[in-house]
Amino acid sequence: MVKKHEMQKYLDKAEVLIEALPYIQRFNRKIIVVKYGGSAMVDDELKEQVIKDVTLLKLVGFKPIIVHGGGKEISRWVGKVGMEPKFINGLRVTDDDTMELVEMVLGKVNKNLVQLVESLGVRAIGVSGKDGGLLKVQKKLADGEDIGYVGEVTEVNSEILNDLLEKDFLPIVCPIGMDDEFNTYNINADDAACVIAKAMGAEKLAFLTDIEGVYKDPEDPETLISELHVREAKELMSSGFIGGGMLPKLNNCIEAIESGVSRVHILDGRIPHCLLLEFFTNRGIGTAILDDENTKFYKGE
Amino acid sequence: MVKKHEMQKYLDKAEVLIEALPYIQRFNRKIIVVKYGGSAMVDDELKEQVIKDVTLLKLVGFKPIIVHGGGKEISRWVGKVGMEPKFINGLRVTDDDTMELVEMVLGKVNKNLVQLVESLGVRAIGVSGKDGGLLKVQKKLADGEDIGYVGEVTEVNSEILNDLLEKDFLPIVCPIGMDDEFNTYNINADDAACVIAKAMGAEKLAFLTDIEGVYKDPEDPETLISELHVREAKELMSSGFIGGGMLPKLNNCIEAIESGVSRVHILDGRIPHCLLLEFFTNRGIGTAILDDENTKFYKGE
Amino acid sequence: MVKKHEMQKYLDKAEVLIEALPYIQRFNRKIIVVKYGGSAMVDDELKEQVIKDVTLLKLVGFKPIIVHGGGKEISRWVGKVGMEPKFINGLRVTDDDTMELVEMVLGKVNKNLVQLVESLGVRAIGVSGKDGGLLKVQKKLADGEDIGYVGEVTEVNSEILNDLLEKDFLPIVCPIGMDDEFNTYNINADDAACVIAKAMGAEKLAFLTDIEGVYKDPEDPETLISELHVREAKELMSSGFIGGGMLPKLNNCIEAIESGVSRVHILDGRIPHCLLLEFFTNRGIGTAILDDENTKFYKGE
Amino acid sequence: MVKKHEMQKYLDKAEVLIEALPYIQRFNRKIIVVKYGGSAMVDDELKEQVIKDVTLLKLVGFKPIIVHGGGKEISRWVGKVGMEPKFINGLRVTDDDTMELVEMVLGKVNKNLVQLVESLGVRAIGVSGKDGGLLKVQKKLADGEDIGYVGEVTEVNSEILNDLLEKDFLPIVCPIGMDDEFNTYNINADDAACVIAKAMGAEKLAFLTDIEGVYKDPEDPETLISELHVREAKELMSSGFIGGGMLPKLNNCIEAIESGVSRVHILDGRIPHCLLLEFFTNRGIGTAILDDENTKFYKGE
Amino acid sequence: MVKKHEMQKYLDKAEVLIEALPYIQRFNRKIIVVKYGGSAMVDDELKEQVIKDVTLLKLVGFKPIIVHGGGKEISRWVGKVGMEPKFINGLRVTDDDTMELVEMVLGKVNKNLVQLVESLGVRAIGVSGKDGGLLKVQKKLADGEDIGYVGEVTEVNSEILNDLLEKDFLPIVCPIGMDDEFNTYNINADDAACVIAKAMGAEKLAFLTDIEGVYKDPEDPETLISELHVREAKELMSSGFIGGGMLPKLNNCIEAIESGVSRVHILDGRIPHCLLLEFFTNRGIGTAILDDENTKFYKGE
Amino acid sequence: MVKKHEMQKYLDKAEVLIEALPYIQRFNRKIIVVKYGGSAMVDDELKEQVIKDVTLLKLVGFKPIIVHGGGKEISRWVGKVGMEPKFINGLRVTDDDTMELVEMVLGKVNKNLVQLVESLGVRAIGVSGKDGGLLKVQKKLADGEDIGYVGEVTEVNSEILNDLLEKDFLPIVCPIGMDDEFNTYNINADDAACVIAKAMGAEKLAFLTDIEGVYKDPEDPETLISELHVREAKELMSSGFIGGGMLPKLNNCIEAIESGVSRVHILDGRIPHCLLLEFFTNRGIGTAILDDENTKFYKGE
Repeated sequence: MVKKHEMQKYLDKAEVLIEALPYIQRFNRKIIVVKYGGSAMVDDELKEQVIKDVTLLKLVGFKPIIVHGGGKEISRWVGKVGMEPKFINGLRVTDDDTMELVEMVLGKVNKNLVQLVESLGVRAIGVSGKDGGLLKVQKKLADGEDIGYVGEVTEVNSEILNDLLEKDFLPIVCPIGMDDEFNTYNINADDAACVIAKAMGAEKLAFLTDIEGVYKDPEDPETLISELHVREAKELMSSGFIGGGMLPKLNNCIEAIESGVSRVHILDGRIPHCLLLEFFTNRGIGTAILDDENTKFYKGE
Repeated sequence: MVKKHEMQKYLDKAEVLIEALPYIQRFNRKIIVVKYGGSAMVDDELKEQVIKDVTLLKLVGFKPIIVHGGGKEISRWVGKVGMEPKFINGLRVTDDDTMELVEMVLGKVNKNLVQLVESLGVRAIGVSGKDGGLLKVQKKLADGEDIGYVGEVTEVNSEILNDLLEKDFLPIVCPIGMDDEFNTYNINADDAACVIAKAMGAEKLAFLTDIEGVYKDPEDPETLISELHVREAKELMSSGFIGGGMLPKLNNCIEAIESGVSRVHILDGRIPHCLLLEFFTNRGIGTAILDDENTKFYKGE
Repeated sequence: MVKKHEMQKYLDKAEVLIEALPYIQRFNRKIIVVKYGGSAMVDDELKEQVIKDVTLLKLVGFKPIIVHGGGKEISRWVGKVGMEPKFINGLRVTDDDTMELVEMVLGKVNKNLVQLVESLGVRAIGVSGKDGGLLKVQKKLADGEDIGYVGEVTEVNSEILNDLLEKDFLPIVCPIGMDDEFNTYNINADDAACVIAKAMGAEKLAFLTDIEGVYKDPEDPETLISELHVREAKELMSSGFIGGGMLPKLNNCIEAIESGVSRVHILDGRIPHCLLLEFFTNRGIGTAILDDENTKFYKGE
Repeated sequence: MVKKHEMQKYLDKAEVLIEALPYIQRFNRKIIVVKYGGSAMVDDELKEQVIKDVTLLKLVGFKPIIVHGGGKEISRWVGKVGMEPKFINGLRVTDDDTMELVEMVLGKVNKNLVQLVESLGVRAIGVSGKDGGLLKVQKKLADGEDIGYVGEVTEVNSEILNDLLEKDFLPIVCPIGMDDEFNTYNINADDAACVIAKAMGAEKLAFLTDIEGVYKDPEDPETLISELHVREAKELMSSGFIGGGMLPKLNNCIEAIESGVSRVHILDGRIPHCLLLEFFTNRGIGTAILDDENTKFYKGE
Repeated sequence: MVKKHEMQKYLDKAEVLIEALPYIQRFNRKIIVVKYGGSAMVDDELKEQVIKDVTLLKLVGFKPIIVHGGGKEISRWVGKVGMEPKFINGLRVTDDDTMELVEMVLGKVNKNLVQLVESLGVRAIGVSGKDGGLLKVQKKLADGEDIGYVGEVTEVNSEILNDLLEKDFLPIVCPIGMDDEFNTYNINADDAACVIAKAMGAEKLAFLTDIEGVYKDPEDPETLISELHVREAKELMSSGFIGGGMLPKLNNCIEAIESGVSRVHILDGRIPHCLLLEFFTNRGIGTAILDDENTKFYKGE
Repeated sequence: MVKKHEMQKYLDKAEVLIEALPYIQRFNRKIIVVKYGGSAMVDDELKEQVIKDVTLLKLVGFKPIIVHGGGKEISRWVGKVGMEPKFINGLRVTDDDTMELVEMVLGKVNKNLVQLVESLGVRAIGVSGKDGGLLKVQKKLADGEDIGYVGEVTEVNSEILNDLLEKDFLPIVCPIGMDDEFNTYNINADDAACVIAKAMGAEKLAFLTDIEGVYKDPEDPETLISELHVREAKELMSSGFIGGGMLPKLNNCIEAIESGVSRVHILDGRIPHCLLLEFFTNRGIGTAILDDENTKFYKGE
């Protein structure tokens, strides 16, 4: 026999599940690309929460794809191996040795994520952009300078991801690609997530970041923007207010939206379970970038 | 910007969803037969909760099948039409006219449930045991007396349900069957749920009832049994303590377990969201009947 | 040993079967919608013949779908229950109580047809427009007046019927639908048959009626029309000769033809096996409405 | 407007079609092997009737396979080419030249049948036992003598026929096979039909012959046997009454039944539409050989 | 232990296989139509080599289709049977008797090829243009004269070949077709190969001929052309240099290229393994006809 | 125009391809597991040859799976990072840090192989035993001592490999696994190849090694054994002649054979194209271990 107040606690739980119903329905069999990086990848507790969130998305019928970076772990290993950083015109160069190490570290991070998902009983597979020729790249110059094996994606061979989704895997992608001569290149993870979302016709693209979202005025925390239409985003970018790190991210967001992704989110990865909150509650997390016309179905609308 | 305490509320919600993860995994693509009847069918709020629960089970990847009765609504219509009840040796007889009315009422109840599920965005289909020859019956005598069109199931043609599940329908079954001459018979809904669970190889069979569960001593509410092994259930039945209404239900439970259904539950349908509580929390609701050996995975074990 | 004249009888039979060959070929795997109603539904012998005919169509490889009404049975039950008919401006109103009863009666009629088909060894399933959200409706006003739950179809979700045909069921549809708020509505069976034929891309739509066909002059039985091109049908309708009951039916026929149904037939359901005669012999039954250009393959052409 | 007596004629036709219903159901998707030979292959009118019959069987959902001989046409060509018949111990020898001609004639007959079926709008394909390695043979000695390329089937590679049936072809097989060294052999068409029926798990095997059936006493036409159980057939064979030509045929029948073919028929191919009469009416044609236990469903039983 | 020089022999073999790799890749799952005729069909050793070549193409993942003639064998049989050739205006006429014999001979040739392929362990099936209605023809007049059953293809029913390829058969086609009245016609094998290549969207069409290829000047063996663009072929044809036999062949080549076949080859069938040499080495055999723009991937380009 | 002797060269090439025909047939759609390691992995030219060989096997219809080690590269990195080797009772210990580095190096090697295969135009995917839970392990003790994260495989989840083969990938597996707590373990690559071959029902398992094969007397190169039956292998192992490194390898061979792998080969990876030689020529490479009864089809038998 349970006490009244205890009973209430259970009923509250049931209520939470029931509240999730329309969201579960909305994203049923939809592809969701999650760019995973930043603090959420360093802090072990946050990491576990993100993975649990994505696993839950998979189990309730969504089709999530994780694209991850590996920034801090790469730095740690560069130090550990005692590599000499090289620079051209002040830009860090990804030479052969660096590329080799980056691929090793990203590979390790990749399999570690596979491990976490598998431990939750969901079928994961880790691939890099080499597998099945997923990501074709060309050398990316920085201000006209050759800074080594840094690539920009020219083609996404989405067939491999479709095959893996069809076989019910949760694909975890590390941002490595090959050029036409099959050399290895490093790719910015935000860019990789963006092109994959576009190529897969994703319903949603979510960036886990270390910021609360986009601000009208980065100096003023009160100016956090909840929803940003593409048109407004472009204005904001040309306003000069937006800081350096945010500019390419916003660019990615706009590009994704304009290629047919329904909604792009810049989430604060430092908030526990930010993905679940974003998908299953009416709590606005971070900034949603959306099509100028797209105003249907979503919370608050 | 959200306040701290408000934030906590959202995190609590995320926690509830995460707690559901192992259960969602456990019953993924498993067939769940829910016998739906009693108060949970009369009270509109409870009805909506049950349907929401089942719909959620469907959306997160389970394969629920609802088998429903229609007791009180039948009584209401018998009165409304002004039918003369007939009796043989004190037993109520289901003659042609009664059978016709029963089928009409059950049909209406059936489509009403379809309507509720559809309104939640899930694909439902209502069938009776006539459709696709689902339930073959023979006349059931009561103490050797012919009491009319009351049938017991001799064969379940599970192909139709498998076809509907394969096409991603939520099947809702009303307990009507046909004999070898294709006459219409009424079937006890508990019995129908039991034979369907057996024929479909269900993972779980849940009876929504108007009692809290099975008691060691029905007079003493403190003696509610949480888990009852088949062996114990048989002892209890022969003890004489178990009341009339519970005996056939326990028999159904035992039969289902012995035919391979992993677990059978007698739930208190008067508790809101009792199905969700049963499936997604570690709150024990009602009485679980289980195989003498089956002790793995479940809560509290 | 058989006698000569007896032998001839058998050979004649074989000849009949052979004559059916081109028709069987012509409609192989084609969808045929049969609107079933009128006398053919009241007379038990006619009923059995219609069901046998449709079952044969199914067995020889066609894909029939039955859409049925329930007119007289509804009237019988309205009387039985002692309902007070309500009127607005002289029009009969389908209020809540009436709608409830109509749904019950149509449901019973539906399962009775399932029963007959099943008794002939063919797999049938009875659905209403609620199942799988088959028929979406909006309220239909009569001369601007709200006469209750009378709906006109705004959308046919043909996926459910395709799924059932794929699983080799013979679908039997009762003309009930739901509006956007998931309220129950009654639909004119002729209209339902017409929109389903259109949505399913039916090859043929056949109305079983209580008339011999369309007459140039309803007063003169000699003026029965065998074939009516859409253009002629429109002229006839504007001629003022066509009676009230026939006008909406002809409208449905024209609409179906103009949406791609190859041929629409108004058959005399009082003639035994009128469907077989129409499909398998060169005997013209009733009136065929056809495309202005469509003149190939058919008998007499 | 049709006259009364004319109407009756049409209704009689409908009745014939309806009578076919249980038979169409009974053999739905069942494999039927028809050994086609004798007069029914020489007389052009009979030929057309047989092909129409088989085509109808195909169209109403059966899966017929034709195995044909070519006796008289072979004799005609042997004469035409002016071949010298060779004999060993009085037995006709199939030497290289004869085998070459036999294959050519059977090939022509085969494509001629394809042509007839195609002209009726049904998809046919003609194969010999060489295609897909359908019939593996070994040399068959006659009384210990080597009489050339006469083979007995050692293995049926039924996969090719299953593939063709799956693609909805009507396969027409000519009785040529290859031995382990891939030499060409002639096969008795009755034998070929029998082994194919066995290997394909046919429901029925029908031999079109030039006799009325099996007689108890071949001298007395009154002693034609309608149904012959395997046990009785064996007794008959050992009775000495059965003539030379019938013995191997009866042997084939018994072998087929004992390998699981439900029923074997010796039909009189000289009766027009004998196949249709056999399948669709209760007119007993020729002799049915059946399992000692198999007594259910069939006419007269 | 192997000796050095012996080892080298094996390594050379491996090298040959490795050289085949890009070609195997290039034609993976591509349809290749081989017109088989001429000396390569008369000489037993060449015949075996051609069949081995095609079988290898099949085994390494290509989808070859053989279309064969039967010229010399037909002449042999015309003589053997002692047929009187008929002429109209000096043109040989294919009357009923000739057509019958031609079909018989081609049928025999067809099954003989099946036999050879089967003996190499690959699944073959021989069809004529009658099977599945593969080749629909109309009478072809020669200079306005009716010369009997000589047909030109009006329609290729490619479904049958696709079905057979899907079931992993190697189809072998003999050039016989039917007109709208289902009469039998002989078809020029080159023409048949060409229309089949077009209808199947073949990647390559190869003619095995008895010439070395196309010459600029047929008198001068030094003027053999390796690659001929469509434009050049047309010029050559209008130049008057090209001899009678070559003109229709070149026409077929041009037609095939212009219908989307990537490359057409006129090969010298008298060279052993000419198909393998063409497909797997950089040795130019005969003449390749190619699209004016198509210049990528191939050897020498 | 080609010269005679040049022509001969091409014909020899064709002959080599034709010789491959029976082998291509024999292994069509068969699973081949290749353990890749040793010199063949260090020498760049050998590496390219092995990858070309495996790619060719894939292209001609086999289903190869590569399982690779990474020995020397691991040593190189252990040195580079300046790790302190740890020992227990003289045994090298795989502690956390070592395991991390091993996984990184193996991951890099894995993707490098993917890269090579992709550059040859074949679809590859690199997985570790973590992906899809492919390899479940438990800690392996060495003489009772815990030497860290060294695992032995307890379960192969072959579903993931079957899924990838079905999608036409060439899977490349690195020998990392997880225990029940999802910790990372290193696995001996020979062992991994062996258990995978067993679980996948491989037709052949080939070990690329740095030895010529198994010797009766390792001191005497003349005693190289070409074929070794399981019985003989066991005798040899108990003879004491077999050296330390060979013992576990022979054990793996025997285990694989006894689990149903048809043939196991110990190949000399230092011979260029040793895989092709083994598969496509009658040149015996290294030592074949085979079932005591298995003596059919193979060369030399």
